[in-house]
Amino acid sequence: MAQNIYDNPDFFAGYSQLPRQVQGLDGAPEWPAIRALLPNVADKRVADLGCGFGWATRWFRDQGAATVLGLDLSKNMIQRARADTNDAAVTYRITDLETLELPESGFDLVYSALTFHYVQDFERLIRMIYAALAHGGDLVFTIEHPIFMAAKHPHWTEDEDGRKTWPVNGYSIEGERRTDWFAKGVLKHHRTLATTINTLISTGFELRRMEEFAPTAEQIAQIPDLAEELERPMILLISAYKN
Amino acid sequence: MAQNIYDNPDFFAGYSQLPRQVQGLDGAPEWPAIRALLPNVADKRVADLGCGFGWATRWFRDQGAATVLGLDLSKNMIQRARADTNDAAVTYRITDLETLELPESGFDLVYSALTFHYVQDFERLIRMIYAALAHGGDLVFTIEHPIFMAAKHPHWTEDEDGRKTWPVNGYSIEGERRTDWFAKGVLKHHRTLATTINTLISTGFELRRMEEFAPTAEQIAQIPDLAEELERPMILLISAYKN
Repeated sequence: MAQNIYDNPDFFAGYSQLPRQVQGLDGAPEWPAIRALLPNVADKRVADLGCGFGWATRWFRDQGAATVLGLDLSKNMIQRARADTNDAAVTYRITDLETLELPESGFDLVYSALTFHYVQDFERLIRMIYAALAHGGDLVFTIEHPIFMAAKHPHWTEDEDGRKTWPVNGYSIEGERRTDWFAKGVLKHHRTLATTINTLISTGFELRRMEEFAPTAEQIAQIPDLAEELERPMILLISAYKN
Repeated sequence: MAQNIYDNPDFFAGYSQLPRQVQGLDGAPEWPAIRALLPNVADKRVADLGCGFGWATRWFRDQGAATVLGLDLSKNMIQRARADTNDAAVTYRITDLETLELPESGFDLVYSALTFHYVQDFERLIRMIYAALAHGGDLVFTIEHPIFMAAKHPHWTEDEDGRKTWPVNGYSIEGERRTDWFAKGVLKHHRTLATTINTLISTGFELRRMEEFAPTAEQIAQIPDLAEELERPMILLISAYKN
């Protein structure tokens, strides 16, 4: 079973205060880049893996999705998602992505934001998603970028000119990474970019596009702290489809 | 026109002493990984862009390629390649990849090793290669990995534990990078991984596989210095095809 850090009270208290949890989708600077990757969901069946408070889950329904299934490991998150949703076409379920099974060809879009790096068995997950998608269906997901995740001590340093610099080591050594983020020892699983891409392709997906999130000039003008995101990519966005 | 650093006498003298230039393909630790990406070339028409001394150019012919065209900007390299080759099916030409045009559908495999990062207009190059490939044809190339190239001062540093660490900054800021390597101010062009992949896909290529070169345990046992290549990827390998 995946580590359920989101139901740790300290973690949950801190996490709930993040702009993207308080403000919803517009609190996430990568949201416009995600939107650009998403297909039209009108009348589609959507699954949202790692739905958290259900911000995107409800958004898909607002865009005309026929049904949206939101899944999350965290009881806290699902309780809050249910409380914030009043729509019979939106359902939520507590589930572990390590063992999740979805009905075959049951979905037209599988979406996931910043969740798959918590999953150890990525290949199993991707095979399951491929089977769960109808032909022509899309998989759009974001994960922490492996450049961001690889190092033993992932934090800003400075180069000899004093420029903000991100350290990379252990990039090719895949496996567990533990960091302190609202709680001690949050467990993530580092995979190289090649492993992520090759797993998709060898499962049968065709890659449509990838993005390494960087803020636009307008975003930096509004939130100057975002400028540091130009120095190294924190988030990887991938759009793939089942032919 | 691309910077022709290879015909700078200091550069050429240093470069010619690299193991991969003295020993040929087996002097390049990524060669087994490249071979695994290459299609069977028996009776195929091959172009080798940035062929240098012609080590791979001749290897393709040894594997049964019908014809092999080796192209390089460096007069020194092409002279040496011609002197080392005695085969009417292998031809060499001095050419600038920034302006190169190849005959439409004239090739079954386009190969390039550690050259495309010298090219400024990657999109033009990829469109030209796509047109030059027959349907079913392959593009296999290696470039310096953008993690390796991005930083203003790309060199090993140490983290707080003394572990070898590679600095990343300016990752999302594409464009010129100048480094000193056998000569001052060698000019390369940094592109994000997303730009490289998306350019291939939007041109029409389908991605078959990518690798971020990491040495095997056997290679490290033979050449212990290679262990540092596990810390950050230096070379990106890509295999794509024209459907």
